Amino acid sequence: MKLVPFLTATSLALSALPVMAQTEAIDNGALREEAKGVFEAIPEKMTAIKQTEDNPEGIPLTAEKIELGKVLFFDPRMSSSGLISCQTCHNVGLGGVDGLPTSIGHGWQKGPRNAPTMLNAIFNAAQFWDGRAGDLAEQAKGPVQAGVEMSNTPDQVVKTINSMPEYVESFKAAFPDEADPVTFDNFAIAIEQFEATLVTPNSAFDRFLAGDDAAMTDQEKRGLQAFIETGCTACHYGVNFGGQDYHPFGLIAKPGAEVLPAGDRGRYEISQTVDDEYVFRAAPLRNVALTAPYFHSGVVWDLAEAVQIMSSAQLGTELTDEQADDITAFLGTLTGDQPVIDHPILPVRTDSTPLPTPM
Amino acid sequence: MKLVPFLTATSLALSALPVMAQTEAIDNGALREEAKGVFEAIPEKMTAIKQTEDNPEGIPLTAEKIELGKVLFFDPRMSSSGLISCQTCHNVGLGGVDGLPTSIGHGWQKGPRNAPTMLNAIFNAAQFWDGRAGDLAEQAKGPVQAGVEMSNTPDQVVKTINSMPEYVESFKAAFPDEADPVTFDNFAIAIEQFEATLVTPNSAFDRFLAGDDAAMTDQEKRGLQAFIETGCTACHYGVNFGGQDYHPFGLIAKPGAEVLPAGDRGRYEISQTVDDEYVFRAAPLRNVALTAPYFHSGVVWDLAEAVQIMSSAQLGTELTDEQADDITAFLGTLTGDQPVIDHPILPVRTDSTPLPTPM
Repeated sequence: MKLVPFLTATSLALSALPVMAQTEAIDNGALREEAKGVFEAIPEKMTAIKQTEDNPEGIPLTAEKIELGKVLFFDPRMSSSGLISCQTCHNVGLGGVDGLPTSIGHGWQKGPRNAPTMLNAIFNAAQFWDGRAGDLAEQAKGPVQAGVEMSNTPDQVVKTINSMPEYVESFKAAFPDEADPVTFDNFAIAIEQFEATLVTPNSAFDRFLAGDDAAMTDQEKRGLQAFIETGCTACHYGVNFGGQDYHPFGLIAKPGAEVLPAGDRGRYEISQTVDDEYVFRAAPLRNVALTAPYFHSGVVWDLAEAVQIMSSAQLGTELTDEQADDITAFLGTLTGDQPVIDHPILPVRTDSTPLPTPM
Repeated sequence: MKLVPFLTATSLALSALPVMAQTEAIDNGALREEAKGVFEAIPEKMTAIKQTEDNPEGIPLTAEKIELGKVLFFDPRMSSSGLISCQTCHNVGLGGVDGLPTSIGHGWQKGPRNAPTMLNAIFNAAQFWDGRAGDLAEQAKGPVQAGVEMSNTPDQVVKTINSMPEYVESFKAAFPDEADPVTFDNFAIAIEQFEATLVTPNSAFDRFLAGDDAAMTDQEKRGLQAFIETGCTACHYGVNFGGQDYHPFGLIAKPGAEVLPAGDRGRYEISQTVDDEYVFRAAPLRNVALTAPYFHSGVVWDLAEAVQIMSSAQLGTELTDEQADDITAFLGTLTGDQPVIDHPILPVRTDSTPLPTPM
C-alpha cells in the first residue's frame, strides 16, 4: 500500500506522454466533418414528431397533450397498487432510469431487463430493448399492464381517469375534437407527447459538432476518433448514437452468461426466428454516463468495462485501457442538458376512484 | 334505476331550502372573529424555523440547505434498495401523502400506519402519529432507517453521499462553517429545511380569515361554525388545525377495531404508560381533502365518514348528515396553494457509490 502514491505518480507521468503526443495530431475540422457524417445534434426543442415523406410536418406537439402526459407520467394511481408511476423506473432526476440492474415493480417483483431511458427516446426507430413497440405511445401501454411492473388494466386506467373531473377536463382540452377523449389510446398518446419533449440538447459533443473546438478535451476527441475508427459507429450512429436497428449481442464473441443470460434471447422472444436469437436493438448512447448499470441484463456498473465488453463481443477488438478510457471520456460528452420538470400537482381522487390494490 | 333522475331533483330541491334559510343568518364579521380566536393563517413564505423566547429570530432557512434537502428528499439512493425516497410516501403531487391505507416500503412490506403529510408539518409541535420525533430533522432520520420503509443505515447514507462529489460540494455549501459537513445529522437538517418550505398558504379559509367574505360559500361557513360549536377545536386548533397535543382516540366511544386496531396502542408503544393507550397526536387538518384515506389506520376513504366517526368517538355527538356535509365542505377550504417543485437533477453516482441491495 505504501507504494501507491509512487505508482500513481508514475502512471500519471506515463499516461501523460501519449496524451501530449496525440494532442498535437488532432485536426478539429477533419474530426468534426467525420463526426457530422455519422451523427446529428439533439434539437434544442421539439415541436412535432413522426415526420414522414407523406407528412413532412409530422404530428404537432401541443401544450395540452404535453401537460396531460406529464401528469399521467407522474401519477402512481395509474398502477394497480397506487405506488408505481412511469417516473418510478424512468426517473427524470436520474437520466431517465432507475439505476437498478433490472427494475423493481408490483409486489417487489424484479423485471427481466434493465429500464432504458426515455430521454431522447423519441429519436429511436423503435422502443424497448427488443424494439417490440413501434413508438412511444405503444411503449407506454406496456409497463402499465405488465404484471411485474404496474400490473394494471386499460379498463381500470380509464376508470381511474374518468373518476377525477380534473383529468376528464384535461383530456377534453388535449383532444378537443373527440367526443369521448378518455381512452387508453389517448392516455398513451399524451405520455408520448410529454416524453417527446424530454430531449437533452447542448451536450459537449453537440457543441463541438456545432463548431466549438473547446467544447471537448483532447482525450474526449481521441475517444471520438477511436469510437469511429474502431467501428462502434456501425451500430451507434445518428442523433441518438444507436436505437436505429438490430444486432446480435455477441456477434464475434459471446459475453459471459452473467452479461448475456442464456434465458433472455432478445428478439427471438417475439419472432421465434433463429436469426433473432440474442438480437437486441443497438442501445442509444446519449447520456450513457448517467444510466448505469449497463446492458439489458444491467450487470455492468463501470462504463469503461462496458466499452471493453462491447468492443470484444461486437468488433473482435481488444481495446487498450487507454483506448477504453478515451472512448469512455468521449461518451461522457453525450450528456446533455437534463430536462427540469415541475412535479405536477395531481388531480384529486373522488369517491368513484378505484381503491389501490397493493396485493 | 329509472327513478334516479326524479329522486336527484327532489333531493336537490329539499336540500336547497335549509341552505337558503341559514344563509341569511351568517354574520361574517362575528364568524371571522371567532375563527381568529382559534386559528391562524399559513404564512406566505417561510424564512426561519424554531423561534423560541430565547431565540426569537429562530434558525434561518438558507437557499443552500433548502436545495440540498430537496435533492436528498427526491433521491431514492438514500434507501438501501435504491428505489424508495422520501417522495415515494410523501408525494408533493398528492398533498404530501401516498394515498394508501398504510405505506408500502422495502420489499413491498406494509408499514403500520398511514403516511402523514409533510406539507405544513413544520407547524406541528411534534412529528409522527404518536409525536415521537420532536422536530422534522429527527423525523427524517426515522423512515430512512426503518426496515419496512427505506431500510438503510446512517453509515450507508453517509457513504452514499460521500461517494458523489456533487453531494459533497452541496453539503459544504449548505454547512460552510463545518469541517466535515457530510453527516447523518446534516442530512436530516437539510431535509427539515426543505420540508419547512412546503407550506400551503392562500387557502379559501385563510382568505376568509384575512377579510374576504366571498372566499367561502355559505355551506362552508356553516361548516366552520359547526366545527367550532361542536367542539372539534378542542383538538384541531392553531395554524395547522391540530398537531399540537395528544388525545385518546375514542375518548367517548371507541371506534370499531378496523378504524382503531387493538394492536396499535399509539403513544403507549413509546411510553409504556397506561394513560397513553390509544393516545395519538391530534391530526393536523390542513389539506385534509387531499390526504385520504384517513386515520392512523388509513381505512376510511370518505372525509364525511371520518368527520362522523370523530364526532361520535371524541365528542359523543351524532352529527346529522347535513352537519357532516357542512363540516366536510368547510374542511375543503383548508386546501391551500400546493408547492410546485422542480424535480431535482440528482448527483451522478461514481465507482465508489454503494450498489443498491434490493434484497
